[in-house]
Amino acid sequence: MTQHSGNGNDFGGRNIHVMRARRLGIDTQHEAFIFMRKDCHVCRAEGFAAHARVEVRHGADVIDATLYQVTSDLLHHNEVGFSEAAWRRLALTDGDEVTVSHPPIVESLSIMRGKVYGRRFDDASLQAIMTDVVAGRYSDIHLAAFVTACSARELDLDETVALTRAMVGVGETMTWPSAKVLDKHCIGGLPGNRTTPIVVAIAAACGLTIPKTSSRAITSPAGTADTMETMAPVMLDRDAIRRVVEREGGCVVWGGAVRLSPADDILIRVERALDLDSGGQLAASVLSKKIAAGSSHVVLDLPVGPTAKVRTRMAAKVLARNLIAVAETFGLVARIVYTDGTQPVGRGIGPALEARDVLAVLQNSAAAPADLRDRAIALAGEVLELGGIAGGAGRAAEVLRDGRAWRKFQRICEAQGGMRTPPVSQHRRDIHARHGGTVRGIDNRRIARVAKLAGAPEDKAAGIELHVRLGTRVERGQPLYTIHAEAAGELDYSLAYAAANPDILVIED
Amino acid sequence: MTQHSGNGNDFGGRNIHVMRARRLGIDTQHEAFIFMRKDCHVCRAEGFAAHARVEVRHGADVIDATLYQVTSDLLHHNEVGFSEAAWRRLALTDGDEVTVSHPPIVESLSIMRGKVYGRRFDDASLQAIMTDVVAGRYSDIHLAAFVTACSARELDLDETVALTRAMVGVGETMTWPSAKVLDKHCIGGLPGNRTTPIVVAIAAACGLTIPKTSSRAITSPAGTADTMETMAPVMLDRDAIRRVVEREGGCVVWGGAVRLSPADDILIRVERALDLDSGGQLAASVLSKKIAAGSSHVVLDLPVGPTAKVRTRMAAKVLARNLIAVAETFGLVARIVYTDGTQPVGRGIGPALEARDVLAVLQNSAAAPADLRDRAIALAGEVLELGGIAGGAGRAAEVLRDGRAWRKFQRICEAQGGMRTPPVSQHRRDIHARHGGTVRGIDNRRIARVAKLAGAPEDKAAGIELHVRLGTRVERGQPLYTIHAEAAGELDYSLAYAAANPDILVIED
Repeated sequence: MTQHSGNGNDFGGRNIHVMRARRLGIDTQHEAFIFMRKDCHVCRAEGFAAHARVEVRHGADVIDATLYQVTSDLLHHNEVGFSEAAWRRLALTDGDEVTVSHPPIVESLSIMRGKVYGRRFDDASLQAIMTDVVAGRYSDIHLAAFVTACSARELDLDETVALTRAMVGVGETMTWPSAKVLDKHCIGGLPGNRTTPIVVAIAAACGLTIPKTSSRAITSPAGTADTMETMAPVMLDRDAIRRVVEREGGCVVWGGAVRLSPADDILIRVERALDLDSGGQLAASVLSKKIAAGSSHVVLDLPVGPTAKVRTRMAAKVLARNLIAVAETFGLVARIVYTDGTQPVGRGIGPALEARDVLAVLQNSAAAPADLRDRAIALAGEVLELGGIAGGAGRAAEVLRDGRAWRKFQRICEAQGGMRTPPVSQHRRDIHARHGGTVRGIDNRRIARVAKLAGAPEDKAAGIELHVRLGTRVERGQPLYTIHAEAAGELDYSLAYAAANPDILVIED
Repeated sequence: MTQHSGNGNDFGGRNIHVMRARRLGIDTQHEAFIFMRKDCHVCRAEGFAAHARVEVRHGADVIDATLYQVTSDLLHHNEVGFSEAAWRRLALTDGDEVTVSHPPIVESLSIMRGKVYGRRFDDASLQAIMTDVVAGRYSDIHLAAFVTACSARELDLDETVALTRAMVGVGETMTWPSAKVLDKHCIGGLPGNRTTPIVVAIAAACGLTIPKTSSRAITSPAGTADTMETMAPVMLDRDAIRRVVEREGGCVVWGGAVRLSPADDILIRVERALDLDSGGQLAASVLSKKIAAGSSHVVLDLPVGPTAKVRTRMAAKVLARNLIAVAETFGLVARIVYTDGTQPVGRGIGPALEARDVLAVLQNSAAAPADLRDRAIALAGEVLELGGIAGGAGRAAEVLRDGRAWRKFQRICEAQGGMRTPPVSQHRRDIHARHGGTVRGIDNRRIARVAKLAGAPEDKAAGIELHVRLGTRVERGQPLYTIHAEAAGELDYSLAYAAANPDILVIED
């Protein structure tokens, strides 16, 4: 996808600028940054300016990186400082010899520019772009241009299929012996909407194959992998995942260890920063992960509500049509379930608090949140039907009620490395109603923010516990929700935000 | 343009996270970066991830910045490390108290997204966007999306006018007492095309007002300001510029000290990284600087050639129409001169080497490069005509020949702070023809690269001196060009590149 352009790398094989690697311990997420002294020999000779794209070599390994220049004594003249992402990708140790030069031209950028000017993508062009994206050859500026171009020049069905195929192609894939491989996914997320462990337990208890790979939170207070991790290990490699699924039919593991559609992980961060994701990109993002995971049938939970990702029923329908059409091309059967996205699901928001809700539902506890149970049953019913098991939601409810789902879940946890008890928070404080009335609105985004300020998802026990739902009648002084934190500082911070934002819950007469 | 969204800044006035500023001496160009320990109280409490946008306050000063997280002992838990751009904008000294919080929502981003989806910009929307751009509220990702949107949804004339007006509006402007204020500008640049000092000298010698603000090189081996600086000081403030122009009618100074269209400086870097600049953006970029500088008449030199910025005559004409139409709206008279962009101009490429050519032309030296002289006369002729002085190029040639231009140039240099002699390089080496034949092609981009590798523009005396032009008949072993460098290392590096790229000059039988 790249070729040497004679623009700086080509010095007749001479390697005249050996430098020493130094780990700076700077986390830049996926971006590869390097730091060099502005007055070092290489910067002067190469004519590098700050922010230049450079090629860094360590033995046979080579990456593209963004260069920043140091004007202080942070680095010696012969040192190159590395961000963590760059350090890992070059497998460096301190003092290793590295060379820095002008990078080859990234040929696929001209394809990307073509799209900006209105040319359509084909299979080969998206393959080229995704290859370069995954190889780290696109800076954030290039990624932003790609994402913007795909929104300004909306991808048609063929292009969306091509993007999905390319995203699958540049990552790893999994295959399964059974003919039907079930999956479920929630689009956009909703605080507390942790149906996955329950759905997997029900489906696996009914004999279906449902190898669920989940993500950690990126901007939310908990991802399914974070919640599941409070109940069992989730960082399993391919072979371990395969063993769990062979034995129990299902799993709930972190997908990061298997590099399914790694381009998605890179693009999604830029899409969020821009708050742009076209239907085509969203479909490719969701479906590339499912296809790479080897799924044949997927139930897509699509919450719709004013503070959910998808805000109107009409937008949801357009999205659904697109998802189904693209999935079909890959022989993947997709079923969309529109769900209520007007308020959080269950009581807990945060890894351990959500796990507690999940366990209450699985254990048929009287205190189990009914909305979480009902949603899980509805989604599991769709999964069962897609899997060819008659009875749908009725059957799912039965398997949950008679304890088979709970036993299956325990076995899955054991197979993943042993069941755990979710941790309990050290600090708690209630937020009370300032006046009486009926709960008329809950802001999903700001309630999630309170949970994050309290420490979720890093502090597993942190988050919030909701005591009311839309329509609940409250008296003045009645507790609306409880903030859970691991440290007093986080608790204070979260409380201050909650106090300053009483309208997160709208209470009207 | 922003408003507090209740998303993190609003803690009822409590200021619970005071940190200490530390200068890291990292040059990131205009981008404001800060660095904090991942495990510090603020990152944990705020739920900041690496790459988050944050708001940083120091007393009454506030900026938006991009946060990177440190996992090593580079920083203490209560320290915030700053990039140079962030440090300067907050006017910090080591140990100052700063606070870091979630930034207010940048409202104009939704306008930018509207453009992505096809809505047109109006005056107010571009004003809002440019205000936020200049305030540093757009990350590179946002800037890239803006630039891409303006290319994918090409700006029409009204939008281009609105963008130009907004870019002028967010910067400083200059005004002049004379009714006609002349200017000239070369679009895209061409190595060695340093006509400006000559044109200014001729026009000022004829009594015109021509207060020329120039830029330094961004990616080229020399900008006009770099070249001029080898002959006279160029870093003058507004008052000093005004005094020079009042006294001599003209000047050639660096524009950076007067913040004319500062948005352009920010956008142009991203446009170059993407290699995207739509006609609308190019027009706004060029003309906003001229309008802000108070020009009433401008001659635009538009080199056309296969390795110039504008590659075909047709592209040049489209661009020219756009430039003239936008300029007209602002009462700015623009005249376009299409020039030969197939090869470098003059002999020297690099600040001092180009200055030597300029001086040779001004001094009527027998060795003066004819092409530089002819181009300067042609452009000066257009400037004179626009300025209402009859005779055009003939008159310009006369003023040059009889020494008036040279005397005026010396007076301008004295007024700017004193005339200087351009420095001479320490190291030189000739590049010889490998075989005989006729020079059929010169790659502007790669010849510029040789000059940069030799140290230009930082090393003022560095660069290259061309001994041949298109059509020159050469013998095997004849010197084609001489590399000038200040240090042996740069010379070697430049030589290695030149040796590995013999086709920079195409010699055919």
